[in-house]
Amino acid sequence: MGCGAALPTPHHFCSSQVVNIREKLFMVDCAEGVQTQLRRSKLKFSHINNIFITHLHGDHCLGLIGLISTFSLLGRTATLHVWGPAPLKDLFQPQINFFCNNLSYAVELHEIDAKSNAVIYDDRSVTVETIPLKHRIPCCGYLFKEKQLMRHIRRDAIDAFNIPVCYINNIKAGMDFTMPDGEVIPNHLLTTPADPTRSYAYCSDTMFKPSNAELLKGVDLLYHEATFKKEHELLSKKTYHSTTAQAAEMARLSEAKQLVIGHFSARYEQEEELLKECQDIFPNTILAKENMCIKL
Amino acid sequence: MGCGAALPTPHHFCSSQVVNIREKLFMVDCAEGVQTQLRRSKLKFSHINNIFITHLHGDHCLGLIGLISTFSLLGRTATLHVWGPAPLKDLFQPQINFFCNNLSYAVELHEIDAKSNAVIYDDRSVTVETIPLKHRIPCCGYLFKEKQLMRHIRRDAIDAFNIPVCYINNIKAGMDFTMPDGEVIPNHLLTTPADPTRSYAYCSDTMFKPSNAELLKGVDLLYHEATFKKEHELLSKKTYHSTTAQAAEMARLSEAKQLVIGHFSARYEQEEELLKECQDIFPNTILAKENMCIKL
Repeated sequence: MGCGAALPTPHHFCSSQVVNIREKLFMVDCAEGVQTQLRRSKLKFSHINNIFITHLHGDHCLGLIGLISTFSLLGRTATLHVWGPAPLKDLFQPQINFFCNNLSYAVELHEIDAKSNAVIYDDRSVTVETIPLKHRIPCCGYLFKEKQLMRHIRRDAIDAFNIPVCYINNIKAGMDFTMPDGEVIPNHLLTTPADPTRSYAYCSDTMFKPSNAELLKGVDLLYHEATFKKEHELLSKKTYHSTTAQAAEMARLSEAKQLVIGHFSARYEQEEELLKECQDIFPNTILAKENMCIKL
Repeated sequence: MGCGAALPTPHHFCSSQVVNIREKLFMVDCAEGVQTQLRRSKLKFSHINNIFITHLHGDHCLGLIGLISTFSLLGRTATLHVWGPAPLKDLFQPQINFFCNNLSYAVELHEIDAKSNAVIYDDRSVTVETIPLKHRIPCCGYLFKEKQLMRHIRRDAIDAFNIPVCYINNIKAGMDFTMPDGEVIPNHLLTTPADPTRSYAYCSDTMFKPSNAELLKGVDLLYHEATFKKEHELLSKKTYHSTTAQAAEMARLSEAKQLVIGHFSARYEQEEELLKECQDIFPNTILAKENMCIKL
């Protein structure tokens, strides 16, 4: 939805993304203007039930109250869960009380420990873990790990053994099938392997934090902030941000399969130069842009 | 900057406008996303020193904290004055303290009495008055009245009487000129009349309030909300909004020279129909739209 840094520009909104896992939508960060971006994206944004805020800087959360309000005007009934570091509740509960009275649904604010790595969300499709980051205020990224999928049914084998439809879900889950005469058909004859599970990590805002590499090991897609070019490394340290080279080095250390960089400082007009600096270290890097959809 | 109602759409941002009076910029309402709109408008938005908030519904003020924050990132030094009904301070001061610490400039929040008509701002170019409106919460519009301009110098007369340049400003202000021989040249020989002063009224959000007509008498441009079509008059009453016909009737009663309607409900796709309903009553009506500039 947005991949600029603190200053929005005509080209970039501030940070917000939507992660779609089997048609469940998870939002990561919620910057000003995100609801307009959501409208434009044609996403079914009433399907967002969880919003994960990395940290309480305005460019990552000032769209929250507007979005909560709009959900209510649209007649939402499902509970909305908002996750983020303290003082999430002290900051937003008074605003929700003031701006969003008589909401048509419940909003639950969950404060998380940004300093530890922990599973904070778990359903049948996915787990979400916190990734401790290093910024000026408590800040954590989020790691989405898809759960094991079902195996694929071999239609020809099901037909050949004349297996009733009521057994299909168990067979997808890995069970063997016992024929009426007692013969056991092993599962591997009835199914092909499940699709591999996928993972996505969102790391923004943060200084270079190589100790996270183990946690991110083998991630399919890593979003890492690259606020500054290499030449501005001192500035990046001072502001607790990362350079292009550091983002790429995190991808290399983590053995990520792909890197997407964002949170670009408004000072750079030629973002291709940021990309080039990353690709020198980690070739499979792309630039985030608004309304981009990356399929894993 | 935005002329939609509470629900932003792909076509409409929520309410915000900028009034330019002799290159001083005044903002009226400050909805989410306004800073992006300001960027796109190419206005010199650092020239905004006063923001007038009509009421504390989210669709009229949720852009304030982002804008205050951005001003600081851009190194602003001039004090910013924000005006609006209570509890403006209780609501926004804690957010300013949290999100905008170490601001490069001062923000002064001024609570105004939304129930009375009073001059709340006065400089050498303009006065700004509150217009009491009738909405679900305390709400007032704003009336901008330009002050008398200087008369225009007649270059030919100045040359003919050989008047030194140091007298020009006094002559523009209306003074006669006394020649070295004691002869008095009356001002009307040296100048032509000043341009007429201009006025602009912003009335949103409100029910039909004909008692304001006297206050708005002869206004050059009236912005009036027209959230609903005539057929939804009951709904407009229930939500304390106006219909097209009521907006047009306010323009007629006020003897406004021109009417611009906005705050359109997201339910209407054919806004030309809203316009038509107004023009039946007040022909010189136009539809507000994003990035429209109306010169008076």
